[in-house]
Amino acid sequence: MDFPSKLIENAVVELSRLPGIGKKTALRLALHLLKAESDTTANLAEALAKMRFDITYCLTCHSISDSTECGICGNQLRDHSTVCVVADVRDVIAIENTGQYQGVYHVLGGVISPIEGVGPADLHVDSLVARTTAEDSEIREIILAISPTMEGDTTAFYLSRRLREVENLNISTIARGIPMGGELEYADEITLGRSIVERQRQAR
Amino acid sequence: MDFPSKLIENAVVELSRLPGIGKKTALRLALHLLKAESDTTANLAEALAKMRFDITYCLTCHSISDSTECGICGNQLRDHSTVCVVADVRDVIAIENTGQYQGVYHVLGGVISPIEGVGPADLHVDSLVARTTAEDSEIREIILAISPTMEGDTTAFYLSRRLREVENLNISTIARGIPMGGELEYADEITLGRSIVERQRQAR
Ligand SMILES: [Zn+2]
Ligand SMILES: [Zn+2]
Repeated sequence: MDFPSKLIENAVVELSRLPGIGKKTALRLALHLLKAESDTTANLAEALAKMRFDITYCLTCHSISDSTECGICGNQLRDHSTVCVVADVRDVIAIENTGQYQGVYHVLGGVISPIEGVGPADLHVDSLVARTTAEDSEIREIILAISPTMEGDTTAFYLSRRLREVENLNISTIARGIPMGGELEYADEITLGRSIVERQRQAR
Repeated sequence: MDFPSKLIENAVVELSRLPGIGKKTALRLALHLLKAESDTTANLAEALAKMRFDITYCLTCHSISDSTECGICGNQLRDHSTVCVVADVRDVIAIENTGQYQGVYHVLGGVISPIEGVGPADLHVDSLVARTTAEDSEIREIILAISPTMEGDTTAFYLSRRLREVENLNISTIARGIPMGGELEYADEITLGRSIVERQRQAR
């Protein structure tokens, strides 16, 4: 692609480094910014730079935070005896948006992936074990909320083993099955099979 | 959507002002930037700001340029007797990428749109007329390369009338018809009808 301006070309190159944004989309975004008020670009550039350089991570749960203790860990109204273990900050946001969870979190920072060279030492696993085994620990349940992929299952299995010996600690995984509104006949065989094996008894 | 950090929230808000980028995509982009090297964000923010604040426009054709004369207007190997009139810089880039055009351009900066309150005075129409009527003008042909929409056709019609009285000036419009590889039966009626009426005689 030929560009009439080196300045545009640079902007397109940098925009198209973003996931899911090709050269054509990047050009559309760049030309949009050129047409819009200059504040739009100034605010965007500043918000991105501030986010990247000023962000901190919660020292307890490793979630993204504006200080060393995130709003969830610092909230005494939440249930600090239940820790939901997730791969990514995105999962925290998704679960928070359900409005169904009142416990706290632990963000691993990824999943175990031999192919991508990610081992347990690259994840916040030791700090999870430390949280549960600390003398003043009030943690009674660990919910493993990790995507049911091969790598996710490997990670969950590894964590279960590491946490098995902690006394008075229940370990659970999020329920898997047919999604709400999903039709049985369109569910994949593995999901359908597991949903039968792990059927839930109705309260009477 | 709840955000664990005001810094992320700001970044998501600014990213989702871009066309075609919703809150979910914006969050994905923000989290990607947080994971990537900090240079990725620094370079992106700088490229956007530099583009927006340092960009200039060619004084002759109004295309985007890094100086007051764009690379096309300043190129003496191009055919300065043929001017292709387009709505937008994006069209210049698209036509340049075909490699089929050797003339120069004139960027209107939009199309006439009564609904959006865009009249001829808001576009670079007077400067087009001035280019063609200048005493030292070498322009012999104006190609109207404007999208065949209602507003585009209105704009082309208006320009034809304004340019009609210029002596020794041919006015043409880009060919319209069935796109290459397009199947007749799927073409819309108007395109198909025009492609028959404006059929092109084959060279013998
Ligand atoms: Zn926290
Ligand atoms: Zn120019």
